[in-house]
Amino acid sequence: MVRARQAAVPRPEPVVLLDRISQLVTMAGGADARRGKAMREIGLIRDGAVLISGGQVVAVGSAREVAKSTWLRQHRREVIELDCRGKVVLPGFVDSHTHPVFAAPRLIDFEKRAAGASYEEIAAAGGGIRASIAGVRGTSEQKLSEQVTSALRQAQAQGTTTLEAKSGYGLDAASELKSLRAIRRAAAEWPGTVVATFLGAHVPPPEFKEDPDAYVELLCAEMLPKVVKGKLARYVDVFCERGAFTLQQTVRILREAVRLGLRTRVHVGQMTNTPLETILAEHPASVDHMDELRREDIAAVANSDTVATLLPGANYFLATKKYPPARKLIDAGAAVALATDYNPGTSPTISMPMVLSLACTQMKMTVEEALTAATINGACALELGGQKGSVEAGKDADLAFFELDDYRELAYWFGANHCAAVMMAGSFADLF
Amino acid sequence: MVRARQAAVPRPEPVVLLDRISQLVTMAGGADARRGKAMREIGLIRDGAVLISGGQVVAVGSAREVAKSTWLRQHRREVIELDCRGKVVLPGFVDSHTHPVFAAPRLIDFEKRAAGASYEEIAAAGGGIRASIAGVRGTSEQKLSEQVTSALRQAQAQGTTTLEAKSGYGLDAASELKSLRAIRRAAAEWPGTVVATFLGAHVPPPEFKEDPDAYVELLCAEMLPKVVKGKLARYVDVFCERGAFTLQQTVRILREAVRLGLRTRVHVGQMTNTPLETILAEHPASVDHMDELRREDIAAVANSDTVATLLPGANYFLATKKYPPARKLIDAGAAVALATDYNPGTSPTISMPMVLSLACTQMKMTVEEALTAATINGACALELGGQKGSVEAGKDADLAFFELDDYRELAYWFGANHCAAVMMAGSFADLF
Repeated sequence: MVRARQAAVPRPEPVVLLDRISQLVTMAGGADARRGKAMREIGLIRDGAVLISGGQVVAVGSAREVAKSTWLRQHRREVIELDCRGKVVLPGFVDSHTHPVFAAPRLIDFEKRAAGASYEEIAAAGGGIRASIAGVRGTSEQKLSEQVTSALRQAQAQGTTTLEAKSGYGLDAASELKSLRAIRRAAAEWPGTVVATFLGAHVPPPEFKEDPDAYVELLCAEMLPKVVKGKLARYVDVFCERGAFTLQQTVRILREAVRLGLRTRVHVGQMTNTPLETILAEHPASVDHMDELRREDIAAVANSDTVATLLPGANYFLATKKYPPARKLIDAGAAVALATDYNPGTSPTISMPMVLSLACTQMKMTVEEALTAATINGACALELGGQKGSVEAGKDADLAFFELDDYRELAYWFGANHCAAVMMAGSFADLF
Repeated sequence: MVRARQAAVPRPEPVVLLDRISQLVTMAGGADARRGKAMREIGLIRDGAVLISGGQVVAVGSAREVAKSTWLRQHRREVIELDCRGKVVLPGFVDSHTHPVFAAPRLIDFEKRAAGASYEEIAAAGGGIRASIAGVRGTSEQKLSEQVTSALRQAQAQGTTTLEAKSGYGLDAASELKSLRAIRRAAAEWPGTVVATFLGAHVPPPEFKEDPDAYVELLCAEMLPKVVKGKLARYVDVFCERGAFTLQQTVRILREAVRLGLRTRVHVGQMTNTPLETILAEHPASVDHMDELRREDIAAVANSDTVATLLPGANYFLATKKYPPARKLIDAGAAVALATDYNPGTSPTISMPMVLSLACTQMKMTVEEALTAATINGACALELGGQKGSVEAGKDADLAFFELDDYRELAYWFGANHCAAVMMAGSFADLF
């Protein structure tokens, strides 16, 4: 986790009172991911207030309750008061799955796919993941970092305050490290929180096409130690899928990552179902995509501590018709998160409100479930449930402000941005 | 058509040269709707320029060509030059189908639908079109006009410069006229172009549920003459559908509208297929929705002068899985337009870029076809092909500027807004 504030010159933090918030969605309930029916509990307070100091939430409640707090009375003279009538305020979105380190949009794929081309035809036309690999390998760290910064700006503009960012289009040691450094560089300038993930195991790169095992060995022997040494990532991610990495290779990489002190997450079930039991036994923080699931896998996720992160942006963009079985997962008691999967090939969106819309219209999640999935459960998918994802005393003051009358409108309007501002670690960041 | 500029105090119009436009999409080709393969011709000019005076386009071409124009040399001293490198510029979007006169979002419908409720259950819970009818009837013209203004602002922010706006939630003479006056009032403050449509024939109102024919008679005998007298609408629209109006009632209303000097358009084929031949014989400017079509209807539209306006926002929001058969229509040689169908029940979006995304990902239109459908064909669906929808000498200088490198990105990114500015009748309108 990289936070710019930690590096900044210390200055007195203002005490801020957000007063008379028309609808305050707190997501109160502590540090754990919400499961099943608990995903409907959003801790809504009408005419709410939040008191903020030192970048953290000090008190939350109804405007009347907070006005009475001893802390507020003691600090009355230092308080900057903001009238939040006509606003919906919620914990900043936690976008727990993005691929922002790429050189260019994949317009060839987009055009060819609309014309009905297969993956092979797209690749033959110069598209597909190979285009992104060539792009990242041929682009400087500085340029890649500008791309990530642009993504962070756009994410912030729509209410995201914490974002996971993966490498994964470099696929050789130099280019993967360059990608992770690009993430670190962009993160250092952003007042929000970036969690870096090493996805060297995205697909076997072209030069290892005939011998993916050799790539796995290279990744474990050379790349992982360098990532650890450079403190470049908190997570290691593997794409476990036909054409990417086998279950056996996946487990090999996850174990090596854990041995080196990294945490893990896995892309699984996007196109084919992989028995989840083996993966869940490695205790990844999150299993992502989950389009193709057997009934026993749903039960296995529900009985595990792993969050199921659904990425409907990819289903929409690829027009798969079928979406991840959110209802079945939630009804079985799983902890479900939602993320954008922002990437140039299959999900060119960084809008969490767009994902809320997809979740409610296409996956029949309730608005409350979707909001839970996009905040506290996203935080838990990044093992940041203790600091992020809800508006509670002691947690980071990361908030998103929307010009709306009702929190349900967040998922109702689509192709719109009603985010008026975000606060990150207690400061408004409009000028980023 | 209502245009604020016409009422404004005359002032000298600046001469503007938009120079070095990275990609200028002109849609050049005159005043007619594009059909079939011609929809792929977008008149792209790289390093383009547009010369604007008196609110109209004076010259268009490559930067080099325009620099040589005699007109420019004669007016050199008055010219304001704008460097448009790094921008994609296109004709402002023409959103030819919206329902912006409503009092509140229909959140009950949205929630109940996600939970699998039927229309009947939604109505019983206080949702459905009845909620919008009660809302409009109980809301002042001033308040409704503020709603329309808010819609115009949001549309403009995403690149729309011409917008059709329907009444249709009042459904009694007073409330329909109030709705149309609300449109006129909002339009008068907007520098873009609003085309007003009287949709008194949206559904039979609750008080005529048992005798819809009596409502049709009231509409023809009382409402239509008042609309004409007040010059409140250019079009009359009828929702021809099971539960709304029969084919016979539709024809009755269309003929009366034409007799009174109004132009017509029809909602048809949203849920059930209605034989189109009878409707097309009335020569409406546009037939809208067109989800349910028989093969012979596709041929009939292709052989008519009527534009087929597709509204995929509703398909998305209602998660119908099935989208209008854009490919079949285009391949048969029909003129297809795209619009948002902005309304509180079934399509709460006013984003034309969102509609472009839906068109390309879900309906397999090419980006070029989608852009044609959203500009010149939308203009033709409003019979404004001579003034709007393309960047050509003699046409209104209504333009949209996007911070993108490639016009295909307009449909590629989703849940994003890359519109940097719009120009309407030759003036930038950022401050609206």
